[in-house]
Formats: sequence, C-alpha cells, structure tokens
Amino acid sequence: MTAITLPIAVTTEDVDHAARAAHQAFLHVATEAPSLRANRLTAVAAALRAHADELVELGQADTHLAPARLQGELKRTAFQLDLFAEEVIAGIPLDATIDHADADWGMGPRPDIRRVNVPLGVVGVFGASNFPFAFSVIGGDSASALAAGCAVLHKIHGGHRTLAVRTAEIVTEALRESGSPDHLFSVIEGRTAAEALVDHSLVKAIGFTGSTAGGRALFNRASSRPEPIPFYGELGSINPVFVLPQAWESRSQSILTGYAASFTAGMGQFCTKPGVLFVPDTYSEEDLRGVLEPELGHAALSELLTPGLRESFGHARDEAAAHDGVTALIPGSDDLVPAPTVLLTDSTVVAANPEILHLEMFGPATLVVRYQQPEELPGLAVLMEGQLTASIHADDADDAASLIDAVTGIAGRVLWNGWPTGVTVSYAQQHGGPYPATTSHTTSVGTAAIGRFTRPVAYQDLPDRELPVPLQEANPWNVARRVDGNVVVAQSQSQSQSGSVEG
Amino acid sequence: MTAITLPIAVTTEDVDHAARAAHQAFLHVATEAPSLRANRLTAVAAALRAHADELVELGQADTHLAPARLQGELKRTAFQLDLFAEEVIAGIPLDATIDHADADWGMGPRPDIRRVNVPLGVVGVFGASNFPFAFSVIGGDSASALAAGCAVLHKIHGGHRTLAVRTAEIVTEALRESGSPDHLFSVIEGRTAAEALVDHSLVKAIGFTGSTAGGRALFNRASSRPEPIPFYGELGSINPVFVLPQAWESRSQSILTGYAASFTAGMGQFCTKPGVLFVPDTYSEEDLRGVLEPELGHAALSELLTPGLRESFGHARDEAAAHDGVTALIPGSDDLVPAPTVLLTDSTVVAANPEILHLEMFGPATLVVRYQQPEELPGLAVLMEGQLTASIHADDADDAASLIDAVTGIAGRVLWNGWPTGVTVSYAQQHGGPYPATTSHTTSVGTAAIGRFTRPVAYQDLPDRELPVPLQEANPWNVARRVDGNVVVAQSQSQSQSGSVEG
Repeated sequence: MTAITLPIAVTTEDVDHAARAAHQAFLHVATEAPSLRANRLTAVAAALRAHADELVELGQADTHLAPARLQGELKRTAFQLDLFAEEVIAGIPLDATIDHADADWGMGPRPDIRRVNVPLGVVGVFGASNFPFAFSVIGGDSASALAAGCAVLHKIHGGHRTLAVRTAEIVTEALRESGSPDHLFSVIEGRTAAEALVDHSLVKAIGFTGSTAGGRALFNRASSRPEPIPFYGELGSINPVFVLPQAWESRSQSILTGYAASFTAGMGQFCTKPGVLFVPDTYSEEDLRGVLEPELGHAALSELLTPGLRESFGHARDEAAAHDGVTALIPGSDDLVPAPTVLLTDSTVVAANPEILHLEMFGPATLVVRYQQPEELPGLAVLMEGQLTASIHADDADDAASLIDAVTGIAGRVLWNGWPTGVTVSYAQQHGGPYPATTSHTTSVGTAAIGRFTRPVAYQDLPDRELPVPLQEANPWNVARRVDGNVVVAQSQSQSQSGSVEG
Repeated sequence: MTAITLPIAVTTEDVDHAARAAHQAFLHVATEAPSLRANRLTAVAAALRAHADELVELGQADTHLAPARLQGELKRTAFQLDLFAEEVIAGIPLDATIDHADADWGMGPRPDIRRVNVPLGVVGVFGASNFPFAFSVIGGDSASALAAGCAVLHKIHGGHRTLAVRTAEIVTEALRESGSPDHLFSVIEGRTAAEALVDHSLVKAIGFTGSTAGGRALFNRASSRPEPIPFYGELGSINPVFVLPQAWESRSQSILTGYAASFTAGMGQFCTKPGVLFVPDTYSEEDLRGVLEPELGHAALSELLTPGLRESFGHARDEAAAHDGVTALIPGSDDLVPAPTVLLTDSTVVAANPEILHLEMFGPATLVVRYQQPEELPGLAVLMEGQLTASIHADDADDAASLIDAVTGIAGRVLWNGWPTGVTVSYAQQHGGPYPATTSHTTSVGTAAIGRFTRPVAYQDLPDRELPVPLQEANPWNVARRVDGNVVVAQSQSQSQSGSVEG
C-alpha cells in the first residue's frame, strides 16, 4: 500500500466541499448491486486485519489500553464488516415488501404497491473515545451507514487522533482498491467542522457515541435544523445489576468477583459498565469489603483515556460519594492510574433520593445498594432513567417475573446471570434503550443497526422494468421479501439459506 | 348500547390523571396474548360498522363532506382495525429474532440473545381535521398504538367535535365490552391539554397529522423535553406530478381529467392532493383552460372543513398567485363554496424561484408548470422539499429512469400513471417522506405503522420460562421469527400462513 495524504476537513467551507463530494459518491452507490456493496465492506475488513499490528501499536500509544483488548476490538470491528456484508447480500435491511394488486381487498381495490428501504444519503459519524476501533473511524455507525448505501463523513476523536488518521488512510485506500467512488468516506476534525457537519443540508443523519451533555447538545442542534434529521446518539447508562436473595445466598462470592471484574474492565470506561449493584442487606460493610478488596487487587489498571475524562470521572465520583447516606466502602484514589472506588448505600436512601441512581461515573467506580426485601426491586428499577442494559442474578427458587417486567420498561438489553460489559455483534443484539441511554429506539450494535440509515419508499403500479431491483417480480437479487402478507424466504443464500417452517 | 358520559381532560391536572390511568391500563396489556389484543381491535371495528349511519350523519354536519366519502372513510377505518388484528396474530410487528449461543461465532463466543419489540407505553394522538374517521379518534395512529400494545390519549379536533365525542364513546364502550382495562383509550381537548399531553413524562410518543407550523411547534416541544420522545408528525406535502412527453402527446386529455378530479377531491383538503403538475409546453394557456374548465365544472364542491382552513387556504393561494411569472389560468373564487383555482407558470420561473414549489395550498388550488425538455425534470424534482408522494405519467417510449431516481430522493411513495389521492391500507404502503412531509422516516398508513409505537428489547441467556412468550423456544404464539440469521416462517396462520421459497 502506498502512503496517501489524507484530506481532513476543519473549516465550515471544508465541510461543505466534503459533504457535496460525499453526496456525489452516495448517488453512485445508492442503487448498486449487493455484491458490490458487500465487497467494499469485506475489503475494508481485510485491510484492518492486514494492518492489525500497526494499528494496535498506535492505539496503545493513544489510549493506554492493553494490546490484547485492542486486538480483540479490532477483530470484532473487522468481523462486524464481514457480517454486515452477508446481511447486505441476504437483503434483510431492504425489508422488501410486495402487495400485488387485489380487486377484492377489504377496503376497496388495492393497486400494486411495493416498498423497499433506500439509503438516506450522507451520514455524519462521531468517533467515541472509549472504543478506538469498534465505535470510531470504521466502527458500528460507519459500517452500518456504508452497508445501508450511504456515504460517511467521520468526525475524528482527538483522544486517539494518530490511530484515527491512520485507520482512515487504510479505509480510504481499501475503498479505492475495491473500486468505490472517491469521497464515499472522508474525515473531519474539530468543533467548527463538527457543528458544520450537523448543520449541513446534505447530511441526512448523525451517529454519535459520547457524553450525555455533548450528545444532547448535538441532538438539539440536529432537531432544530430547518429540516430536522435523525440523531442516533448513545449518551449515558448506569447499567443496574439486581441480585435476588437465593442467588446471593448460594454464590455471593462469585457474583462479587464477576462484578469487580466487570466494573473495572477497560478502567470502567464502557458504556455498559455496571454502575450500581442491588444486593440483599445480609452482608456487613466489612463482609463486602473483605470480598471486593482482594478482587480489585487483581484488576489490570491503567491511565484513563484522556485528561478530560479523568477530570469528569473524579467530579462525578465525588458528587456521588458526597450524598447523605452514601459511604465510601473502598475509597479508590486520584492517582494518574486511579484505584477503583466502591460506594455503599441502602435502598431507603436511593428511594428517597433517586438522583443518586442517575449519576454516571465514567471510570472505575460503582455503587452497591443493599435492600431488605426483593419486593422492593421493581420499584427501585423504575426510579432509574433509561438504560442500555439491566442484569438480574437469580437462582431457580428466586421469583424474577415482576423484576423482568420492570427492567424491560427501562432497558434495551436484559441479562440473566451475566455481566453487561461485552456486547456481541449479531442479528438479535440491541444496544440502545430509553433516553438518556440513547436518543432513539434503535440499536448501534448488530445487523439491525443498518436500518437506521435507510428510509422506506413505496412504488405504486410501476412497470416491472422501472422498479428497483429488489422489488422486481423475478427477484433477481434473491433477497428475503414479504409478498401479499406472507413472509417469503430467499433461496440458496449463505446466511438466509434455509427457510424452515416452525410449528 | 347504553349511553355513557365521556370524561374529557381539559386541564393540565386532568391530563396528569388521564396519563397515570392510561399508564396503568398499558401495564395490563403490555404482555397480553395476541388474541386478546386482536379481539379488542375487531370489537372496535364492529362497533364502528354498527354505528355507521349515525356517525356518517354526524360527520356530514361537522365537516360538509359528502355521505359517500364519509361512508368509504368509515369502511376503511374499520378495515384497518381488522387488518391490524391479523397482523398482531401473525406477530410481524414483534420482529422476534433469536440468536442461539454459538461458541464458534467469528468475533468470539456468542451468548444466547433474543430480541422482541415491546410497546412504548402511553401514546398521544392528535386528530386531523381532514379525515374525521381515518386520521382521527380511532384512525391510523390510534389503531397502530393499540395494536402495538400501547394506551392512547386522543386529542379531539375541534373541526368535528360532535363526531369525535360520539366516536370516542363508541370506542370506549366497545373496549369495555371486549374486556379491556379501563382508561386504555381516553380523550383530551384544547390547547392547554394538548401541551400537557406532549409534556407528560408518562407519554412516550406522539402521533400527529396537521399543518407544518402547528406540527413543527409540537415536534420542537417533544424534542425539547428532559426525555425527548418520538414525534410522528405528518405535516405538509405538495405531491408533484410529472408528465413525460410521450404520455402527454398520446393522452393529455385523460391526464388533465384525472388531475382535475384528484386536486378537487375532498375540496383539495387531502395531504396527498397533487399541488403541482409538470407538463410539456406544447399547449397554450387557451388549450389548457379549454380542457380544464369543463372538467372542473364536474367537481363536487362544498364548503371547506373549517373557517380557519378557508382563511389559510386563501392566503396561500393568493401568495402563490402573486409571484412574478405566475398567472391565474383559472382564477377560482372566494365564495363560501370556493371555485377551484389553477395557476400557471414555466419551469424557468420555478427554477429561479424554488420557493414557489414549497408553498402548500391546502384546498382546491394547484399549479401547472410547463417545461421545455424532459431532461429538466430530475433537476426540478430535487428543488422540491420532502414529499409524501410523487407521480409520473409516462408511456413505454418515455425515458423515466433518472426521474424515478430523483423522486425516490424526495418522496415516500412513487406512482406510475396514477393519482396520489387514495392511500390503500396494506403491508407495503408507505405514507411518509422526507421533512416536511413527515418528521420521521416512518409510515402512518399500513401495517408498518404499528412498529412506530414499539421499541426493541434483547434478552441475554434468560431461562426459557422467563423469556417473553414470542421468544420462547417452542414459539407458543406461533409468530414469524428470524432464528440464527434465517427467516423462519410461522405455521398455519391466516395471513402469514404459507411460507414458500422463491428462487
């Protein structure tokens, strides 16, 4: 691969040029064959793998994250591109739906109506600090947008600038080598460019992962445009964990071990970090400290991602600790490599002061809440704001039904005897929940993320030759479709190969 | 049926009580069996049909609309409820997706993840003036929300208050007789209550059909809440019609006949009214007037829906007519029953003044634009704002490909040799387009409208007995699902009965 000079848009005028060029590229790919789009995604995946060593080394220098973590994240990011390529071939994101004309339709004769999802256009993607591969340059949002048939303008995150620029060069080169139009993917940098991106009339959606304050400001900006655009923002989440009495009695030690590992993973800088743990009040402070302290001694600690994150983490942690009724079970430290903090309180305190449950401490800190009766838990759950995840630890003898209903009302993913950190990329994944977890009812992880960057268009009575290919009667691309209300399975495809009848 | 006294919420406090009661009702139906939900919808449909004569008479008095039109609209509204009941039984809106645990998953071992759409909670629905059945009390938005498992607070439209109150009584009674929880559906009235509805923390989404100004104000309000909520608003649309040269040459007379009928249907008070017609410049003013005038003589004219609508229609029409280069081909009138207006201009005028193409005249008025070359049309199309529909009239010899691409970029439904008024309720229907046609990329007509009032929740590693029924391995409700990436067809159901393999 030859070295390239990556153009980076920084002024409003730069962004205008970049958006116009990206729009032209979008027009070239909007109706292309699935195989072309899939090849583009797999080419980028292959390029990431080919440059893994170089990128992991750059990532380490930029973020303080361990090589094994970065290697795993790069593998996941490349896998995601390959999985999305398969999804494009299967045609699921198109949601192709055909209603043939029907003279006997119950409300009066029905014309021939056929609907397919089309790409939105140019999409703006903001890189996140905490996942320099998976939620950054060519992470979930960029992969979704490219899989949908959109062009991407990516806003580089300053927390891993060197890695981001090199990744963007590799992506740009891989796209070029796969025969993609120029400017299908490009990058911008800085606040002026970011605001110009959200404001630009050719930009039709935004993907964002970051803080609640920053995300809300951009959501407001996107919603206030003359033409408002969807803002797919992942903002903040506490990710409560509820331990039921029987599970606590039979395996409190292993639960606390898992908890300590989960809330310190990546130095607590995961959007799915478990920030509050509800446990029965059968353990004293000394009991809890006696189990947790040695476990935290095993945690792999490092500096936080950026000085800014370190500062806001300290503020949030201190604010939580200062609440009446909250004590520092394990105080942690303010060192450059901070020791983890565990706060402790009781259910009566948080029931009277629910704001304690709304405070995200983005870093290695968490809150343990002791409750008296499991019947309190559904009521405590609904005191929380919207969440990416909620986890329940329970044994067979525990009655979890009403708690499951309650957390279904506040969260996007419900886990059983597991920890929320670690989000698999699959067909059924949901990474998004009620506000402020996300600003829309969509997912930013998994194949369903692709649909965010499309919109449906119906075609009425068009001749077959004029229809978009996925809607033509012969189904030349062999995509899954719904026809006259019946789900019709595509034939002989890799992932969507076998249509079987369940009964 | 016994007479009931319908409670109507008018103060902020009333709305708070109504929202809390509705939320309790929602909790009762959120996870109910599909058959219960479907029975509720069909019970309401049957009640509408049983009271058709009474309701049509009330509607006539309130709206000046003809009995045949109102009868057809009531039939459509009841059909929609029955179709949604079938969709609930088929389980399509659940989008149930199952990924079994997979130790060999490409990015690392995959847990068992299962996703299903759950209802949002309480939904606020604003009645529209122009469809007193289909987009009002128990129209598309209310039917979608109930089919999703939500509770509904409906804001009565003052333009047909008597009809709305009586419809709400009939709906309330039918819901009670079908065994539904109290307060699953209730009504509010007036501006104070409307604002309280949009603001209430238990209200989780809004459905709206109305003006761009009013809709945008409510969209801003919903987006500015501490917890922003989705605002599904249908605001304004011009619905351009493009006539290609061969079609014009072979059948200009029948095209103008269809146009005259379509833009005066319902006195032009349809969101899909064709507001602009692009034709070749082969006809003189006299030619056009000679064809259109007699056709308009056949139009069934009536008063407009409300005095307010009459006033804003007059303003918009006069503003359009006052543009330089726009002439009144057929001037119309300002009578209580206004005669239809046809304005005329040329493509060079609108290309230089695209704002002429952005002005919706909600009533019996339309604009004819003469063009010189069909190659102008894609460029003219993209000068327009977002549209519900765009129509193309073409013969085999016309080249429509680039125009179809262009209108796909601006519209939600593309018609061929047809007129946009008349929107069938079906699986593939799309009634919604880029802003300001709608405020989101969704549809307010057809079965896909149900999904607007749900959000996805994933369950990770739950025991089968704890899973929501649609995700349990044995599929007790026999709903369509996607399993490990494969689309799986449900067995032996009415609409989703036959799974066939296409190839």
